[in-house]
Amino acid sequence: MTDSGNPHAHAPGTPTVAVIGDGQLARMMQTAAIELGQSVRLLAGAPDASAAQVAADCVQGDYHELVDLERAVEGADAVTFDHEHVPNRHLRTLLDRGVVVEPRPEALIYAQDKLEQRRRLHELGLPVPPFAAVESIDDAVEFFERVNGAVCLKATRGGYDGHGVWFPEDLEDLKKLVEKLLGDEVPLMAEEKVPFTRELSAMVARNRRGECVAWPVVESVQADGICHEAVAPAPGLPVDIERGTRTLAETIARELDVTGVLAVELFEADGPGGEPRVVVNELAMRPHNTGHWTQDGCVTSQFEQHLRAVLNMPLGSTELAAPHTVMVNTLGADESPEMPLTERVNAVWRRFPHAKIHLYGKSHRPGRKLGHVNVTGSDLRAVRREAQLAAHFLVHAVWADGYREA
Amino acid sequence: MTDSGNPHAHAPGTPTVAVIGDGQLARMMQTAAIELGQSVRLLAGAPDASAAQVAADCVQGDYHELVDLERAVEGADAVTFDHEHVPNRHLRTLLDRGVVVEPRPEALIYAQDKLEQRRRLHELGLPVPPFAAVESIDDAVEFFERVNGAVCLKATRGGYDGHGVWFPEDLEDLKKLVEKLLGDEVPLMAEEKVPFTRELSAMVARNRRGECVAWPVVESVQADGICHEAVAPAPGLPVDIERGTRTLAETIARELDVTGVLAVELFEADGPGGEPRVVVNELAMRPHNTGHWTQDGCVTSQFEQHLRAVLNMPLGSTELAAPHTVMVNTLGADESPEMPLTERVNAVWRRFPHAKIHLYGKSHRPGRKLGHVNVTGSDLRAVRREAQLAAHFLVHAVWADGYREA
Repeated sequence: MTDSGNPHAHAPGTPTVAVIGDGQLARMMQTAAIELGQSVRLLAGAPDASAAQVAADCVQGDYHELVDLERAVEGADAVTFDHEHVPNRHLRTLLDRGVVVEPRPEALIYAQDKLEQRRRLHELGLPVPPFAAVESIDDAVEFFERVNGAVCLKATRGGYDGHGVWFPEDLEDLKKLVEKLLGDEVPLMAEEKVPFTRELSAMVARNRRGECVAWPVVESVQADGICHEAVAPAPGLPVDIERGTRTLAETIARELDVTGVLAVELFEADGPGGEPRVVVNELAMRPHNTGHWTQDGCVTSQFEQHLRAVLNMPLGSTELAAPHTVMVNTLGADESPEMPLTERVNAVWRRFPHAKIHLYGKSHRPGRKLGHVNVTGSDLRAVRREAQLAAHFLVHAVWADGYREA
Repeated sequence: MTDSGNPHAHAPGTPTVAVIGDGQLARMMQTAAIELGQSVRLLAGAPDASAAQVAADCVQGDYHELVDLERAVEGADAVTFDHEHVPNRHLRTLLDRGVVVEPRPEALIYAQDKLEQRRRLHELGLPVPPFAAVESIDDAVEFFERVNGAVCLKATRGGYDGHGVWFPEDLEDLKKLVEKLLGDEVPLMAEEKVPFTRELSAMVARNRRGECVAWPVVESVQADGICHEAVAPAPGLPVDIERGTRTLAETIARELDVTGVLAVELFEADGPGGEPRVVVNELAMRPHNTGHWTQDGCVTSQFEQHLRAVLNMPLGSTELAAPHTVMVNTLGADESPEMPLTERVNAVWRRFPHAKIHLYGKSHRPGRKLGHVNVTGSDLRAVRREAQLAAHFLVHAVWADGYREA
């Protein structure tokens, strides 16, 4: 594998951040870095990966291998990640050698291992659904009875975007699933299915010094475990719930010693008396899909904030730049439309000069995150409709509302 | 000279723009390109130049040499510039071979040659000061008498940031200057010094199809011919003058067949009856320092708009993202302060979490444009003060208002 890049990619006296990972999150960290006068060294698995395409200094290698990590972090002021899959033992080795790893493996474990996360949050008295480790079919059956069959089965590690989560229909289904998965050595846990009314995401950034700032809580619309939309701020969220949810995310960041951006995905559900309450779903310790709206809807984007946080720099304002921002993902259609991508972009811009289109340089695959559209404005209905129509056209080359250009 | 970069820098099916020039304008075009899923191939003079540092595909070479231009434009969907100094004959050669050069040399000539520009604008009936070619001392003397000594002498070509402009004190001074400059083979013109009340900048973008959109007119604060501040929109500008000025910039773009971003720098002066009027000062056919505020204060930044325009894509909304935005340049101090740059950035962010700092990766030189600060908000006085204090601290490591951190 060949590295690529300019030996002068890092201007003297400016911070360099090593980013492990080559997806769109790493790509967008680079745009933030360039504007800040900082620079990124990327560890990428492939030279044509989303972030590798735009990297001025790209080390190619495998993030499972210490030797590749070492090459990537050499001389960097901090090392961070666009995913949670780097082996913790390697990060500990780097830390021992004085490398600034942010977030640290002691925090990352709670984004890597769902069971550890549930245990820790429960210990802290934070709202999580009832849960149990599943090491045998008996464990599963016992939990099934405890929650009256409302079981969600999860791989404790390695899941993302809906992978590694199962909703068994009945006890037999659960038993079969558990038997198969344990046979495949998938580490498992079970938790009660939360009958939620909607999903929320609370994001904060925190630096090593302990400074912590929260973005407004957003509503996140998911399908099959994949984020489709984020609506910022979450419409109709009672002020006390919004405040409590921000505080919850700040508490998690502080108690788990998270640095960088933390996304707390939540369920909003009805409490015993019908009042709304929130329950933690997942944690991510990096910029997150539900934070892409901040690029166009907020004074400080999550990508800039992540760099500032991992470099232990002061954090930026999270004030809104517009009353409403809606982000809609462009997820690869079942079939790539005949109309070339550039023509689709042109059609969207002709109709919606306001639409902010972000594309990741990825080739088409059904369901793949290829980009996103942000729309800001003061009329939420109009903003949301525009973002949805634009994202839909970008992947299908069809206006979902039947619109035809004059 | 070695090129650097990733052979996979250009994702299949996405537009590639060749950018000739390696300064901060080219650097910021790249951040826009990355977010749009487009890509840039840079022709840079040095591997450590501002834009070269962050380029994933960087051809090193000399923009005066056709062979280097040819290497840079190969396979690109369009070629554009971050300065006006590429020889027009080379651009014509490229055009003849079918390369999409935007703006075209026929337009660029009016940004390259101040005398040609004055003649053309005058011919179009647009407001320019009285002017004359100066090919001899007699020409200069004649013009001196015509304008009662209020002479501004200019090199018709090659000037920028106040270089190539002289204000002779008296006739003797003028004669000496002209003698020396003509002896040095500097092509000259003279024009009447405009007794302006302030400077404005009107920016538009136009694509090959003729679509043209204007940004709000801004006030530009210059010293020694260098832009220090831009205040958007220009405070207290009467609506009819704002409208007329936008129309003037659109007319210039259309009549001169400009593509990409056009900056029209203007003097606001008192008309014969005391009413305000505007007079064209300079033209630039590329993103411009007085448009940096659009990165944080406008739906579409000048860098994104330039790429869209040169690729003949539909143009974006130029609606304001905030009531007021002030951009202040960070110009290298006489001496670089002892406090390292990163510490200065930290101090600014501690005091002003709203300040958007953009840095170009350049080393310190007195007066050099090292970066800029954008501040947005609804209270113009506060916004302006914050932007000025932040920019001042970044270069001097001193708070101009005596502020001390607790």
